[in-house]
Amino acid sequence: MKTRLTDVLDLKYPIIQAPMAFAAGGALAAATSHSGALGMIGGGYGDLDWIDAQFEVAGQAHIGCGLITWALADRPWILRHVIKRNPKAIYLSFGDPAPYAEDILNAGIPLICQVQTWKDARRAIEVGANVVVAQGSEAGGHGENRGTMTLVPEVFDEIAKQNSNVALVAAGGIADGRGLAASFALGADGVVVGTRYWASKEALVHPRILANALAANGDDTLRTRVLDIVRDYDWPRRYTARAQRNAFLNTWHGSETDLLEDLEVQKEIWADAQQRGDTATVAAFAGEGLGLIDSAPSAQDIAGNIIEQASSILVPKFKV
Amino acid sequence: MKTRLTDVLDLKYPIIQAPMAFAAGGALAAATSHSGALGMIGGGYGDLDWIDAQFEVAGQAHIGCGLITWALADRPWILRHVIKRNPKAIYLSFGDPAPYAEDILNAGIPLICQVQTWKDARRAIEVGANVVVAQGSEAGGHGENRGTMTLVPEVFDEIAKQNSNVALVAAGGIADGRGLAASFALGADGVVVGTRYWASKEALVHPRILANALAANGDDTLRTRVLDIVRDYDWPRRYTARAQRNAFLNTWHGSETDLLEDLEVQKEIWADAQQRGDTATVAAFAGEGLGLIDSAPSAQDIAGNIIEQASSILVPKFKV
Repeated sequence: MKTRLTDVLDLKYPIIQAPMAFAAGGALAAATSHSGALGMIGGGYGDLDWIDAQFEVAGQAHIGCGLITWALADRPWILRHVIKRNPKAIYLSFGDPAPYAEDILNAGIPLICQVQTWKDARRAIEVGANVVVAQGSEAGGHGENRGTMTLVPEVFDEIAKQNSNVALVAAGGIADGRGLAASFALGADGVVVGTRYWASKEALVHPRILANALAANGDDTLRTRVLDIVRDYDWPRRYTARAQRNAFLNTWHGSETDLLEDLEVQKEIWADAQQRGDTATVAAFAGEGLGLIDSAPSAQDIAGNIIEQASSILVPKFKV
Repeated sequence: MKTRLTDVLDLKYPIIQAPMAFAAGGALAAATSHSGALGMIGGGYGDLDWIDAQFEVAGQAHIGCGLITWALADRPWILRHVIKRNPKAIYLSFGDPAPYAEDILNAGIPLICQVQTWKDARRAIEVGANVVVAQGSEAGGHGENRGTMTLVPEVFDEIAKQNSNVALVAAGGIADGRGLAASFALGADGVVVGTRYWASKEALVHPRILANALAANGDDTLRTRVLDIVRDYDWPRRYTARAQRNAFLNTWHGSETDLLEDLEVQKEIWADAQQRGDTATVAAFAGEGLGLIDSAPSAQDIAGNIIEQASSILVPKFKV
């Protein structure tokens, strides 16, 4: 399948596996890249030991690496370190990419910028991103409020208006071939797939958390600040994280002030629960796509299955 | 264009104009029905004089009527009155349709149920709706939190699982042919279009409010309770309304308790501003689709333009 995205990133399939912090390690990235999509390590906040270990796990597979943009501000060496690993692409999310774009592009590494608003899409085009990912609120993990259905065509129009060659990728709620076909219709050149890869054999997810998520439907997630508070991350207020509802979130979502007052106790409860895979406390960072997912196959098969379903759909289902 | 929806509702095009309370009057509904889509009066909270007047304006056009389900509980005569006008369809949103479904179906009137969750979709199928509208959070006016991109295929799977013949319609963020084509890919038989019809010559929208909205982009809307508080509507907490940001919303959104304390004063300010079309105070009930809209054509042309664009897209844009 050829699109502008497969050309820019030299891929067999126009599918990027989301660089999910902590969940997307080297095994997932390698299996995905071997399948013909783009596998990515979720470099997240920038733990260099973890990132190095995952590159080792990935071995010879040519994989990309994602980083949280705002977390680079105090630690610019993280980006230099990742550039030295010669990733297939670097994927920046959540913050102004301007201070980092030049170093990435000068190293000859394709730059993927994920955005959550039309305004930030303009910024990503301006700094020279090779790929802009328009991420809707349906996505698991961090994001913002725009829906995929409107953000993608609006960014498409902006790209056309600027006469830009940047590739446009849709993210947020895309878990199967229907989502890929819909994204093409909206003007995207490909998709980022998160939750579908999160629920795979290779993702670094506790088996109890995974089993619990597979039984959920799309109504069972919400966007919240609670998980960042209890994990002590200083996320900019505009971004919240989508996760599966559970007892812990039902208790603290909407009562963030009370959580802050009891924070030391709750942090210990959380850390302990994480070891045990306690689903009442530790929430899965999963998107609305959970309702379209009920198994955890090998990542090796995911992209091919999406392509096969999308191809069958793109034969018009109606008569004009 | 033939789909299950055009069969069920006897339409030329698989497009339903959203029954937007106060904005969708008889002129809009008639122009839409004449064009081959389904025109609808926004019966809203059930002002019978207004509804009658709009049916008169629509004349011989065969149009539908929308009602807010929770508002029927205390005033069941509203539904009986609307049934007597023999609308082409009745469209219920926001509440359990069970107490009303039988009367509508017994009268031989197609029942359209709009839902915002997978759970409510199951209920709509159960009560015998002929059409289920899966409405994502991108939509203007009232709604909930699921995104169109995931809710539509998840409801599609539920319909298939139940072996039901109900027609599935996508709503939320669909403003052009790309949205229709994407909705088909997700499994829908057609679409509900709101904001695109709200920005039309025939909609009952103050010209200043309309001009201000046409200049906005999709980042400029938010979901809020403020507009229901200041208008004194007792909406169930799960539903919020999407509207265009302005000074009034920037002041009170997130400060709802303060608004309630100053309510009598603010209600007067609001009512006065509404007369004048003061865009700093009166917010447009518009969806994220605003970013895809920059003109207000006649409703007569909207459906045809959407179909034309969708048809050009549904030729695959890539080579397998």
